[in-house]
This record gives sequence, C-alpha cells and structure tokens, in this order.
Amino acid sequence: MSVRDRLFGELDSLTLIDPHTHIDPLNPAAKNLADLLGYHYYTELAHSAGLRRDWIEERGISPKEKVGRLVEGLEKIDNTIQYSWLLEIAREFFDFTADRVTLDNWESLYDAALAKMALPDWERRVLAHSKLEAVFLTNDFDDPLAGFDPSIYIPCLRTDELVFHLGKPAIRERLQRASGIAVDGPQSLRRALGQRFEFFLGRGCKACAISLPPDFAPCRVENAAAERAIATAWRGEPLDADRQRELSLFVFWTLAELCDQFRLPFDLMIGVNRAVYPGGVFQGQDLYDSRVSLIQYRDLFNAFPNVTFLISVLASVTNQELTSFAWIFPNVVAHGHWWYSNTPAFIERDLAARLEAAPRNKQIGYYSDMYKLEFALPKFAMYKRILAKVLAENFCCDRGWGEERAVELGKEVLRGNVERVFGVGRGRV
Amino acid sequence: MSVRDRLFGELDSLTLIDPHTHIDPLNPAAKNLADLLGYHYYTELAHSAGLRRDWIEERGISPKEKVGRLVEGLEKIDNTIQYSWLLEIAREFFDFTADRVTLDNWESLYDAALAKMALPDWERRVLAHSKLEAVFLTNDFDDPLAGFDPSIYIPCLRTDELVFHLGKPAIRERLQRASGIAVDGPQSLRRALGQRFEFFLGRGCKACAISLPPDFAPCRVENAAAERAIATAWRGEPLDADRQRELSLFVFWTLAELCDQFRLPFDLMIGVNRAVYPGGVFQGQDLYDSRVSLIQYRDLFNAFPNVTFLISVLASVTNQELTSFAWIFPNVVAHGHWWYSNTPAFIERDLAARLEAAPRNKQIGYYSDMYKLEFALPKFAMYKRILAKVLAENFCCDRGWGEERAVELGKEVLRGNVERVFGVGRGRV
Amino acid sequence: MSVRDRLFGELDSLTLIDPHTHIDPLNPAAKNLADLLGYHYYTELAHSAGLRRDWIEERGISPKEKVGRLVEGLEKIDNTIQYSWLLEIAREFFDFTADRVTLDNWESLYDAALAKMALPDWERRVLAHSKLEAVFLTNDFDDPLAGFDPSIYIPCLRTDELVFHLGKPAIRERLQRASGIAVDGPQSLRRALGQRFEFFLGRGCKACAISLPPDFAPCRVENAAAERAIATAWRGEPLDADRQRELSLFVFWTLAELCDQFRLPFDLMIGVNRAVYPGGVFQGQDLYDSRVSLIQYRDLFNAFPNVTFLISVLASVTNQELTSFAWIFPNVVAHGHWWYSNTPAFIERDLAARLEAAPRNKQIGYYSDMYKLEFALPKFAMYKRILAKVLAENFCCDRGWGEERAVELGKEVLRGNVERVFGVGRGRV
Repeated sequence: MSVRDRLFGELDSLTLIDPHTHIDPLNPAAKNLADLLGYHYYTELAHSAGLRRDWIEERGISPKEKVGRLVEGLEKIDNTIQYSWLLEIAREFFDFTADRVTLDNWESLYDAALAKMALPDWERRVLAHSKLEAVFLTNDFDDPLAGFDPSIYIPCLRTDELVFHLGKPAIRERLQRASGIAVDGPQSLRRALGQRFEFFLGRGCKACAISLPPDFAPCRVENAAAERAIATAWRGEPLDADRQRELSLFVFWTLAELCDQFRLPFDLMIGVNRAVYPGGVFQGQDLYDSRVSLIQYRDLFNAFPNVTFLISVLASVTNQELTSFAWIFPNVVAHGHWWYSNTPAFIERDLAARLEAAPRNKQIGYYSDMYKLEFALPKFAMYKRILAKVLAENFCCDRGWGEERAVELGKEVLRGNVERVFGVGRGRV
Repeated sequence: MSVRDRLFGELDSLTLIDPHTHIDPLNPAAKNLADLLGYHYYTELAHSAGLRRDWIEERGISPKEKVGRLVEGLEKIDNTIQYSWLLEIAREFFDFTADRVTLDNWESLYDAALAKMALPDWERRVLAHSKLEAVFLTNDFDDPLAGFDPSIYIPCLRTDELVFHLGKPAIRERLQRASGIAVDGPQSLRRALGQRFEFFLGRGCKACAISLPPDFAPCRVENAAAERAIATAWRGEPLDADRQRELSLFVFWTLAELCDQFRLPFDLMIGVNRAVYPGGVFQGQDLYDSRVSLIQYRDLFNAFPNVTFLISVLASVTNQELTSFAWIFPNVVAHGHWWYSNTPAFIERDLAARLEAAPRNKQIGYYSDMYKLEFALPKFAMYKRILAKVLAENFCCDRGWGEERAVELGKEVLRGNVERVFGVGRGRV
Repeated sequence: MSVRDRLFGELDSLTLIDPHTHIDPLNPAAKNLADLLGYHYYTELAHSAGLRRDWIEERGISPKEKVGRLVEGLEKIDNTIQYSWLLEIAREFFDFTADRVTLDNWESLYDAALAKMALPDWERRVLAHSKLEAVFLTNDFDDPLAGFDPSIYIPCLRTDELVFHLGKPAIRERLQRASGIAVDGPQSLRRALGQRFEFFLGRGCKACAISLPPDFAPCRVENAAAERAIATAWRGEPLDADRQRELSLFVFWTLAELCDQFRLPFDLMIGVNRAVYPGGVFQGQDLYDSRVSLIQYRDLFNAFPNVTFLISVLASVTNQELTSFAWIFPNVVAHGHWWYSNTPAFIERDLAARLEAAPRNKQIGYYSDMYKLEFALPKFAMYKRILAKVLAENFCCDRGWGEERAVELGKEVLRGNVERVFGVGRGRV
C-alpha cells in the first residue's frame, strides 16, 4: 500500500460537513436516476457532445425516457471526471459493476436505483454511507426555512436576487412581504434586509452567500446615490447601467455590514457570467471571463476586518491571487474548488499552491455544490484522492513530512476549518 | 515496459492527418539543412541567444554558409524542446548519432541530409516514415490550388489578409482579380468572398482559418457602417481605427456566414500580436498579450450554432476558458497546442484539463504548424509522448482506467476527431 | 540514491552569487532570533492566521518577547514553505532537531541562536556554510556605499523612490544633496541621475533595479511634458495623476538611457501594488493584480537593444509571457521566482516552462531576496531541490538526457549566467 493510499484511507474515514450545496431539504435525495442524470453537468455535456436541447428537455417525457435519451449522449463524455461521479454513485449505491453506462445496461441500472431510492430510509442511508453529518443549503431570502432539521440541513442566506435583481417588482414584493417592512429608501431597505438576517439566524443560518460576475468591484455608495437608485426602481422606472450598479453596490455593501453586525461569514463566489450561451440547457448556459482580480475586493476586505470572507474563484488563473490574499488578509479564507475549476487537474495545482503558502487555518478544502445528496460521495472522494496525492508527493516526498502530520493537515482543511469558521459540528459555538 | 511506454507504442502506430500546417504543396520537403534550420524557431532562438539578425539573414549566403552560422548559436539553445525536434529529425532521417549538433559535426550532417533530400522519392519517404496520410495547407485566398493532390495536401482558406488588410490596394486588387467580381459595397464584397469559398470547396478545401489579435471581439456590423468603411477604403483613403475595425468586423462576420452556408469549419487562432519586436528575424517578431478572453467570442458562437469553431489559444492561461467553452458550446472544439503553448510543460497541463472535462469528441489533439514535412515526426512524437504520459498518470493510475480504454481515447483525439470534424480520411463525407 | 538526489548533490556543491537581496552590508547577519522571525513572511502569516498586529509590533518589547509572541502564531503556519525555511535555518545553523518550533522548545532555540550569533566570525561562518561568495544589495540612490567590501556585497542602485516619489520634497532634497546638482528641469535632472550612476559604478555597482506596479507601461515622454511635470513638482505643487505619470515615465526612461550609457543591467520587478492592506504588519501590506502583460514593455525593450532587462514577474500567470519574451527579445532575461511566486508549486511549473523553451543563457535561476544572510541557505536549497526535480523528471526521464548534461544546465542557470550577465565572479569583466 502506497503512502498515497494510506493517506487516502485516513482522510476517507472522516465524517464530513459539506459547507456549500444546493440541496432541497424537503427533497434531499434522488427519487430516480433522472434526478441524477438531470444534473446540469450531464445535460450540458451531452448537449455539447451532440444531443439537441429540445430532445433532452422535451416536456412531458417520463423520467425513464429522459434517462434513456441522455444515455445516448454519455458515450461521448465517458472520458470526463463528471461522468466518473455518476459511475461511482452507480457502483457505491446501486451495485453497478460495469465500467460504463450503455444503451444495453442503463435500464437495469435505472430499475435498481429506483428500488433503492424507494426505501423509506433512503436519505438516511445516503447520509450514512457518504459519512455526511450535515450539509449547508442555499436558501432564497424569503425561504420559510421550515420542515427540516437545521442541524443536518444548515441554512445559508443566498443573496444574488437582492443584489442584482431588486430592480424587478417581483423581487421587491417578495422582500417586503417576507420582511413585513415597507421599503422606501436606504434606511428601510437596510431594515428589511436586517430583518431577513434576524429571521435566518433564528433558524440556524451559518452563512450569507452570493455569486458575482467578473466585473463586480464592491465599494461604499453615497447615501444620496442609493436613495436615487432606490427611488427610481420603486417608481417602477427602468434602471440604467449606472443606477443598477449603484443599487447593486449599495445592497451588497449593506449585506457586508449585516454580516459584520450578525457575525456571519460571507461566502463570495467570484467570476461567473450568466447566460453566455442562452441556447444551452437548464443551468448549462453560464461561463466566465477569467480576467478578474481580487484587487477589485480590496476596499471590502479592508472595510470589514471582522467579517470572514470565504472566497471561491471560478477560474484557476485566479487561484494564486486567492492564495496570496488569504496569506495577507486575516479575514480572507480560500474556499473549495468551484465549478469549472472543480476537476482534478485544476484542483491538484490550486490545492498544492494553497497548502504550501497560506496558513492552515485559512483554507476550507472542499464543498460539493450538489443538488442531490448522492453526489457528495463521489465529489468528496475525488477531492480526497487529490488531497492524498498532494500530501504524499509535495509534503511527505518533497518535504520529508511524516504521514501522521500530513493526515492532520488534511483533516484540518477537510473538516476542522469548516467547524471553526462556521461554528458548526464539534466546533459549534 | 511501463504503462506509459505501452500507450506510446499504441498511439505511435497510428497513421496521421495533420490538421494545420504551412506546407507548400509544390515544395513540401526540405532541399537542404538550411530549409530546416531556417525554421523561425531556430533563427529567432539563436538570435535571442546572441546571434545578430544581419549575420543570420545576410543576403546571398549559401544554404551551407547559413547553417554554419546558425550552428554557432545552437549551443545556447540545446536545452530547448525546439532544438530536440531538430535532433530527432537528424536521427530519424539522417542517421545522426551524436546528442548535439556542433561546430565539429554539422558539416557531415549537412552532407548526409543533402544526399537523402536529393533522392527522387524523398517527399514520399518522409510521409511514409512519419506515418502521414495527409496534411492541411494554409492557402492565400487567391491561391490557384493547382499542381498537387488535394487528398494528400488538403486546401485551407486562410483569411488574415481579407479581414485585416483589405484597406491595402494590393489586397483588394488580388481579391477582385481572383474572384472576377468588381467590389463596390457590402453586397459585392460578400459575393467576391463567396466566389472564393466556392472555388476553394471545388478544390477540396476543408477549413477556413485565421489568426486574430488579443483585442479582437467579433460582432455583427450594421450595413451602413460596412458601406461607409468599404467606400472609404475603395476611394483609397486611409482608414482610421474605427473604420478599420468596422471593415475587419464586417469581413470576419461575412466569413462566418459563408462557413455556415458552405458547412466549413472555421479555425480561429486567437491571441497573437504581430511585429512586437520589429528588429527580430523573419517570422520571429510576434508575441502576445495574455489578457484575452473567449467571452469576446460569445456573440459569434451564439450566432452560428451550425459552424464548428476550432479554437487555438496562444497563451496557456486561456486554456481553462477553452476547456469550459468546449464543454458548454456544442460548436466549440479545442484545437491543438499553438506556438508559444506548444512546449511540453504547457501541453501536459492544457491537455490534462481538456481530456478530463470536455467531451471526447470536442477536442482535436494536435497539429504540427510545420513549414517542411520533416517536422511532423518530432512534433507529433513530442505530443504523443505527453499524451501517453497524461493517459498513464491521470487516467490509468489516478482513475483506474484499463490501457485499452486509454488508447481508444488517445486515438480519438489524435485522429478520429480530425476525420469527423473535417470530413477527411476514413471519415470523409 | 535517485537521479533527483544525485542531481541535487551536484547542484548543491556550487558556490553561489545571490543576484538580489536586501542585505544591509553593515549588519548582514542576524543578531538574535527576532531578526529572523521578524522577517515579514512570519509576521504577516502569523497575523493572517490570527495574531493582532499591535501584539506583534508593540513598541519596546524585547527581541525575546517578540519571538515568544510570534511562536504563538507559528502553529497555524507550520504547513507553509516559508515556515520550512525557518526550520532549515534552525537545523543547519543552531543544531535544532525537533520538527516544529513550539511554545515548549523555542526558548532553547532562542538561546542557542543567540550564542552562535554572538561569535565574532558569525557572518563569515554563515557565508561559508551557505556557500555564498557574494550577494547583491539594494541600495538607496543616496547610499554612501561605504564600510563594506563591494566584491562580497555588490551594490545595486534601487530606483523606486526616484521614479515614483520625486514629487516629495524630501526625495528631491536627497537627490540634490547626494548629486551636488541643482535640479530645475529635465537636463539637470538627467545630470543628477547620471551623477548617481557614476558614483555607484565607481563603487562597484553591477545593476540598477526597480519594482513596478501592474499598470505601469513605460514610454518616452515629450520633453515639454517632462519640463511641465518637473516645474510643477519643484514649485511644491501637488501633482495630479497625469503629471505624476509623466514625471515617473520621464525618470524611468532616463534611467534606461543611463543603463544603456553605463552598460548596466536593468532589473525590473513587475507587478506589485503597494499597501493594499494598510492594516497589515510592516512589509506585509502589498499584493497585486495579476492582470498585467509584458506587452506593456514592448516600447522599452525595442528602444534599448543594448540594455539587458532582467525581468521578475510577481504572478505566475505572467510566467509564460516572460518565457516567450525571453525567447524572442535578445535583451530580455528571465530572473528568479519573486515573492508570491517563490513557493514550490509555482517555481516548479514556471521553471519547467523556462528551461524547455528559452535559450539557456537567457535565464537566471534564483535570488533569495533576503534581509539576513541566514535565509540564503534554505531558500536556495528549496530552489535547488526543485531544479533537481525538474531536471530529473522533464529532462533525464522525459527527454532521455544524461545526468551530466542536466547538471551542466542547472549550473548555468544557478551560477554561470549570474557571472556573465552581471560581470561578476569568475565572469567578472
């Protein structure tokens, strides 16, 4: 057994808390294979490889029909790591033994999965087999946060709509209804947002989160400008680019102030351009411009020394900046490997750079970003294999570390820092 | 024999089609060693290492004298991978056995090469020994495309001059003469370009190609703007920056429309700045600004869903974007490892990222970009060694793939996708 | 013993010249452990990991108290390569045997170091044990350059203050006093700067150096603009952004002209933003924007073909450009691995890219950037281990090189090129 294998074994024995997912706590596990193959990674890759969108997304087809159609596209994506997640789920949960899902074997897999998923304790089984203790959610600002156990499904206040879409009447309506506060200017908007923080914290919320486009550069907005922008929006008038920008900046800065006031970590996912390919499948339309710099966030990091900013970057070319900013700013923590950077080649190099240069307590190794619980297992397994590889090669081999010391470091980034930064698990405050 | 060696052996047995070269089909192979050492890689590196340009490029010196002078500069570049290509040619084709070309042994190498190159079937021998079935050309828009076998030397319509230099009277003249169409506005310009497409397709052309500067961002130009720009140019007046831009954009967009109409893949080589070092040797003056993003091409990719865009990026920092765009856009294919990114360290990391995240049918592994046939062998060998390494380490070792499956994937990116995307070879349509 | 180990042994036997440091030649070695732990790498990392700045930097605390406080923060940074430098110093120089510096063992380490550092020949011992023949300094433009041996401590004219702070009365005063020239316009400013060059060269200066922000783009400034900017500054009026820019550009370009005239290499350290985190510890406030391109320097490189530009880049994403520019421009040399790129993951990939694509005489492997002599040993050791790894894997293994040839290449980038480029050591001119 190699060093790498032994390290993996140790890391794999940990019970995990997943610090960022899109799980629906009322529907956390898959009901059938379509819930897994419908994940945008498979629909978008199958579409890119040749399947027509209207074929994949035709209304009214059954889950089984949908899977059957997607299987046609799998042959051309069986090289991808995303495909390997599906395989690992099939093997770990559904006793699948083949090395590919094909036109010949998918139906038996579908049926096997359906039988297992129908078990009354399927959710509990998935959590247990995946060694998952808890997962963070992604909650709309007006989510009632009811009907689930917040010590397993930890609320997280997602704020994209507030920052970028408050110009839309429906969003304003929802904010006023949820908060019970009539908004007519910066003060009342702040009160309404504050009410949401109070509500969320009362329900066990442990983070505020947002995804941001590459050209976003937070700064404090003059009150007069905020008033003007809010007045324009509330009159129902269209916001020009400058007004929209002022409104977004004002809301964002106010959220940072509230994170400060309520001692909530602020989870920034930096770099995504939405709907770059509007002809793409559901959730398969976003891309990015890698020309982004964390220097755009210097004012924010300086203005809120007591807010912990958990930073995810979409493009691996930004990883060195993230490492350096986490090395210098006490309030900047490197967070996971996001989306287009969540593949082994990028994880390996990004992780190595972080582990060797930023303080060990300034990095949270991984989150799954999953929509269904079944994906935690293969995604974390991928990460743990790479973590074991980097620890074995860059620490044990290149730097002469003992294995025990390497395992300690691995466990800190995998679990310890999640506990401490968010105040959850054994590190709960 | 290691996994890596076995995989290389399998990949090396393939007969290849080289999807992008600068071969002159009437003069495809070298006539003497100066034709090889005169490749800009050697003249520019030798110049950078210390040889004066006027010494290298002095007019009237014999090929042998030129080689003798360049050999003086080789000692300082014998670390480079570019130098290793030369060595591999010398060993594979001219029975050279030393590990460096020196002042003491170059003359015998020169003479040995001269003797071989004088053989009447030298071209055929090079093709056979290199396992080359066909190579794509780079043809001027007014190339007569005569005198060669288009099933071995496949025409490719190169369009840089049309897009960027139509303001020059000589280029306009050549276009009008070649097309037989008097151009006086957008409509007639489109007809003239269309005539060229028809001519090229009639002669077996399989791609349209262009290299683009980092700040190029294609978009549709209003007809009125195109008319104005064309009128200005055709009156012989100088084009200011805005007019030049409109003219370039109009021609480029029209080429994309014609690729759509004629179902021709459009080969975009993105990121080069020309003549950055005007004091450099011939073809050794170009560099780049790595601050470029494929987001500049979003309108193009959306507007032409039926055109296959083969994308080469000059800087490795753009490779993740290329991988992600090929993963999302059905009409984007990652294409080879271009120029300054065509060295092992960059190929290895760029290739690994593509193989693990983009559909297997959305990537064409490699092209040689060569000017003389002799270079296909060492350049493809370099690529195949890296491909074997990545498949062995990242797929067989890290992901548990069997060797057969790894070889299949390697063959698809090396050859299968060339056939399918361009409709050549066994995949000819 | 592996190839890598054998190569390291050979490289490690070399006596070195360190081409860039911040050594104070009147105080070159540490006096106590606080001189080592006070290095900004430790204070900034410990601060980032949780120690308060005012705790670390409290005035009036003793060196021992300062070390005691910093040791509290070391636990959270013991994963970093920077920490490993400290460990290696402790082992190599102070007979330390533990694998971490802890609250339990730091006092004995402190005392052991104090005893050694008190030896009358400590400086000589450090130089000898580190196999250091000479180190370059970083001298203010008005440094008297007296009291030390310039064949061991080689002067280097640092010019940041002249280029960026000549608007400050104190800097102008110092320039006029040091040069003995009353400055009232471009001509007299050039004479004052020229006087400094003459003075420095007379004292054995071998390089001119400057660090530059990411948005700097050198160009020649019209004389009238320079006159205007100088007149404004000399009248004591504040310089607006445009005037400041003109003044900076004028001084910079003049320095390049003087490097040309006096045949002095110009050491450009490109990409740092100062005081990004003003709340940080001393020297722990600077970061960067990785969106920088060497294309910003094209005019400079073209205008001064006889000046050798030694280029360091702060962000690893710029390394490919540096490699390509060194491959094309005869006067561009890749220089070391600077600051945030001076960690193994970045060095390994940046080094591999340079070694395989740029002429062997166009790259200077490494400099320590140290403030105290003790740091040369662990920093160069880190570099030599990576150099041995890259030569073993990418040259001996991947390209079939013999070990002797690999060692030759390693020695050239480690030492030979330092001698030749600067005219020092055996290569002294």
